[in-house]
Amino acid sequence: MDVKTKMRPQILLFGDSITEQSFRSGGWGAALADTYSRKADVIVRGYGGYNTRWALFLLHHIFAMDNRSAPVATTIFFGANDAALPGRNSERQNVPVEEYRDNLKKIVQHLQAISPTMIIALITPPPIDEKGRMEFARSLYGENTMKLPERTNEAAGVYAKQCIELAKDMGINSIDLWSKMQETDGWQKTFLSDGLHLTPEGNAVVHKEVVRVFSEAGLSAEDMPYDFPHHSIIDGKNPEKAFRVQCS
Amino acid sequence: MDVKTKMRPQILLFGDSITEQSFRSGGWGAALADTYSRKADVIVRGYGGYNTRWALFLLHHIFAMDNRSAPVATTIFFGANDAALPGRNSERQNVPVEEYRDNLKKIVQHLQAISPTMIIALITPPPIDEKGRMEFARSLYGENTMKLPERTNEAAGVYAKQCIELAKDMGINSIDLWSKMQETDGWQKTFLSDGLHLTPEGNAVVHKEVVRVFSEAGLSAEDMPYDFPHHSIIDGKNPEKAFRVQCS
Repeated sequence: MDVKTKMRPQILLFGDSITEQSFRSGGWGAALADTYSRKADVIVRGYGGYNTRWALFLLHHIFAMDNRSAPVATTIFFGANDAALPGRNSERQNVPVEEYRDNLKKIVQHLQAISPTMIIALITPPPIDEKGRMEFARSLYGENTMKLPERTNEAAGVYAKQCIELAKDMGINSIDLWSKMQETDGWQKTFLSDGLHLTPEGNAVVHKEVVRVFSEAGLSAEDMPYDFPHHSIIDGKNPEKAFRVQCS
Repeated sequence: MDVKTKMRPQILLFGDSITEQSFRSGGWGAALADTYSRKADVIVRGYGGYNTRWALFLLHHIFAMDNRSAPVATTIFFGANDAALPGRNSERQNVPVEEYRDNLKKIVQHLQAISPTMIIALITPPPIDEKGRMEFARSLYGENTMKLPERTNEAAGVYAKQCIELAKDMGINSIDLWSKMQETDGWQKTFLSDGLHLTPEGNAVVHKEVVRVFSEAGLSAEDMPYDFPHHSIIDGKNPEKAFRVQCS
C-alpha cells in the first residue's frame, strides 16, 4: 500500500504557461498549495506555449489509466494559445475553436474514465489586453515586429464561451476567467502583466475562484482532516496518544 | 508502471512550521517548485510546532519502506521547536540537544535505508531574535505573558552546531542557516518576521542555499531534462515528431 499517496489526496493543475508560472511569487498554484496545506498535495503540470492539441499528447502520460492515485480534483486551463490568431506571429499555436472544444472534451472524458468522482474545473483563458501585448512585443523585438496583435480579446472571448458551454453540456465545473476579470475597472493592468500573463492580483483572482469552485464541489480545505495531528493536541509527556489514532 | 511518478522525480521538504509555511507568498518551498518547474515535483511535509521527537512518529508514514517512488532529494529542517527552553512558555516542545541529534540521525538513517542515492540536506534552525520574539508575544498576549524569552539565539545555536556536526559525521549535506543569516547586518528584522519565522528575504536565503546544495550534489535544475518537449521545438504542422521521442 502506498501510504503516502493514501494520506494526502492530490490536486492536479493541467494547463499552459499560466499554470506553469503559478508557483512564482504570488502565484495561484502556490497559494492553492498553502490553502490545502497538510491536507492535499498540489501537483503542477503546466506547459508554457501549449495548446489543447499538443496537450493531448501528454494526457495519457500525466493521467495514466492504471494510476491508483488519481487526483481528487483537476484544473484544466488552456485556450490562451489555442486562441492565437492565424496569420499572425503566434499562428503556430492556433487551434480552431471547434477543435479546441473537442480537445477539451477529450481531456475531460479521459479524466472521467480514470475517476468518475474527480472534481474537474475548466478554466477559460483570461482576457487579452491588446495594447499591453503590443507594448510587450515592442519591448522584446523593437518597433519592427508585430504590427498587428497576435491575440485579441474578442478571439479569447470566443474560446472562453465554448469552454463554458462545454462545461455546462458535460455537467462539470467551470471558471469564466475571461468575463470575471473584465468586471473590474482597469483589469488590463491590474490583472495582466504583459497583456496575457497574470500579475499577483490576477493570480489572486484565479486562486479565489478555484478555491470557491472546489469548495462548492465538496473539496473545502476547512472541512478536510489534517494528515497528522495538530501540534497543540500533542501531550508533551505522552505524545504516543495523539499519534495512536492517525498513525497506527 | 506508475508513469507519472516515473517521469518527474520528487523533492520532499520535511520540517516544522518554517517548512509548512514555505508555500506562502515569497516562500522558499514555492520558489523551489518554480526552480524545478517541469523537472521535479516539490512535495511539502511541514508540521508547525513539531520537534524531532514528534517527527519520528510520522517518519515511516511519510517515507514508507515499500515506496517505489522515494524522493531524489529531501530537506530535513527541524530544531526551532526542539530548542524551545525548558521551564518557559513552550517547554512542551523542548527536546534535549543530545536527543535532537539522535532523532535527526534516525531520520537520516531511515531515508538512507529507503534510498542510498537520496540527496539529504539537514538545515539548522534559523537564528532567534529574542527582542522580536518578545514583541510578538506581547502583541498576542499583552503585557502579562512571557517575562522571559521562550527561545534564545544562544540555545538555537547549540542545536544548529549539533545539526552541522551530525551532517559532517554522516557525510551528508547541510545548511548552517543559523550562521548564514547572522552574516547579514540587521538579520533580526531583514530575515525574521516575528523573531523566528521567515520574511520573504529570509525565505530567499533558504531557497538559494537549498538550490546551491542540491546543485552541488548533482541535482541542478539547469542540467535536468524537461518531462515533455519545450513548445518552441514543436512543429505546428507535424507535432507528432516532437512527442515521438519523449512520449512513446
